[in-house]
Amino acid sequence: MIHYKVHLEYDGTNYVGWQAQKDSKKSIEEIAINAIYNLSQENVKINCAGRTDAGVHAINQVIDFFLEKKFSPHNIIMGLNHHFQDTDVVALSCDIVDENFHSRFSAISRSYRYVIINRKARLALDRYRAWHISKVLDIEMMRQSSRLLEGCHDFSSFRDSQCQSNSPIKTIDKIAIITDGEKIFIDIHAKSFLHHMVRNIVGTLMWVGIKKISVEDVQKILDLRDRSCSGPNAPACGLYFLGAIYS
Amino acid sequence: MIHYKVHLEYDGTNYVGWQAQKDSKKSIEEIAINAIYNLSQENVKINCAGRTDAGVHAINQVIDFFLEKKFSPHNIIMGLNHHFQDTDVVALSCDIVDENFHSRFSAISRSYRYVIINRKARLALDRYRAWHISKVLDIEMMRQSSRLLEGCHDFSSFRDSQCQSNSPIKTIDKIAIITDGEKIFIDIHAKSFLHHMVRNIVGTLMWVGIKKISVEDVQKILDLRDRSCSGPNAPACGLYFLGAIYS
Repeated sequence: MIHYKVHLEYDGTNYVGWQAQKDSKKSIEEIAINAIYNLSQENVKINCAGRTDAGVHAINQVIDFFLEKKFSPHNIIMGLNHHFQDTDVVALSCDIVDENFHSRFSAISRSYRYVIINRKARLALDRYRAWHISKVLDIEMMRQSSRLLEGCHDFSSFRDSQCQSNSPIKTIDKIAIITDGEKIFIDIHAKSFLHHMVRNIVGTLMWVGIKKISVEDVQKILDLRDRSCSGPNAPACGLYFLGAIYS
Repeated sequence: MIHYKVHLEYDGTNYVGWQAQKDSKKSIEEIAINAIYNLSQENVKINCAGRTDAGVHAINQVIDFFLEKKFSPHNIIMGLNHHFQDTDVVALSCDIVDENFHSRFSAISRSYRYVIINRKARLALDRYRAWHISKVLDIEMMRQSSRLLEGCHDFSSFRDSQCQSNSPIKTIDKIAIITDGEKIFIDIHAKSFLHHMVRNIVGTLMWVGIKKISVEDVQKILDLRDRSCSGPNAPACGLYFLGAIYS
């Protein structure tokens, strides 16, 4: 068996997310499985670095799968992109990897980017690409709050009730808040995340930004370990899986 | 009569362009006229800084129109955006202007941005937002060529056969080519443009970038004053009306 690692970009707007759902809309996983089948006539199981929710995008998702047939990385990319043609998914690159590689379990770090557009007028060009916040955000207060969340903590306050993780304890390596005109990028790096953790953190940072809560309140929210006290789950359309790092 | 100037952002993907066409698809002009009617119950004629073609976007289009009724700029914005709700058009800001203002004829400068993404893999996230070029582009050669086009020239080689301008002589104030990773922004500033002039220039610069033609060939193309010798009309999806300057 040959083991392939493939990097994908996708626009998640019209999909139910990475995993197949009981829904009429398609999942990215199904699209990838179908494209691999059409290329190889083989039915595969795919591992994925970060399972994205409905409407969430990927700038650089990582997947891996095994095939009996041997293809060059170039032919995998050409073949997948041919079969991805009418979808919002693109194969960026391919490598042949060791049999022990696992795009989910071998990752030592994952990154998500959240995009906010902070302006009065609602969005036309970035309607499905960013979270529109019309109240002026205090970026410096958001940065101070983000520093409280870096490091190893019990993130129960930022965990979705559907989360299947064994433990609410996670380590955030870095939260970088970068501004570019009216755009605000919140990049969060960690080995792994709880379900909806990034979007719940962004919703809470938004509360700080609009001065609904203080920087000190973020510490209290973290300490309370109670999802009901933190900010809203920021909309899916602003979230991008940015990449994974392997040792 | 009160004279209103309004700035618009729009995603041109699903529209026939600024001007109404004999087509089932809507024009931006019709959408704006309808929204103004729904707000004011008045039928208006709209002037526009740069009439965009089908699929072309606007980051900052400028329009003006007269109404019998007096609204505050704030209420114009709120009202228009309410009626724009199910469209890809947004009103960014509004000013009440002098009766002599004309968004087309008063403009002393207009700017367009053309976005290229230069990478092997086709586009998912920017599928309707940029021109995908897979061959590696030589940006420095493109920059050198762009300098030959700056200044006052006969741009017949870059003029669409449908162009209604009286003269093919135009003055390009500046062409700036800016790179950001795999993204290439070509910003072109001039008082006015011929029909398809920006897209024909970009198509010709692309030829230089992929080394199909040399920098010297661009001078020859300009001198020949013949559209059949210049590069392809770059796709509409990469073009953005960036703004207009008034004295």
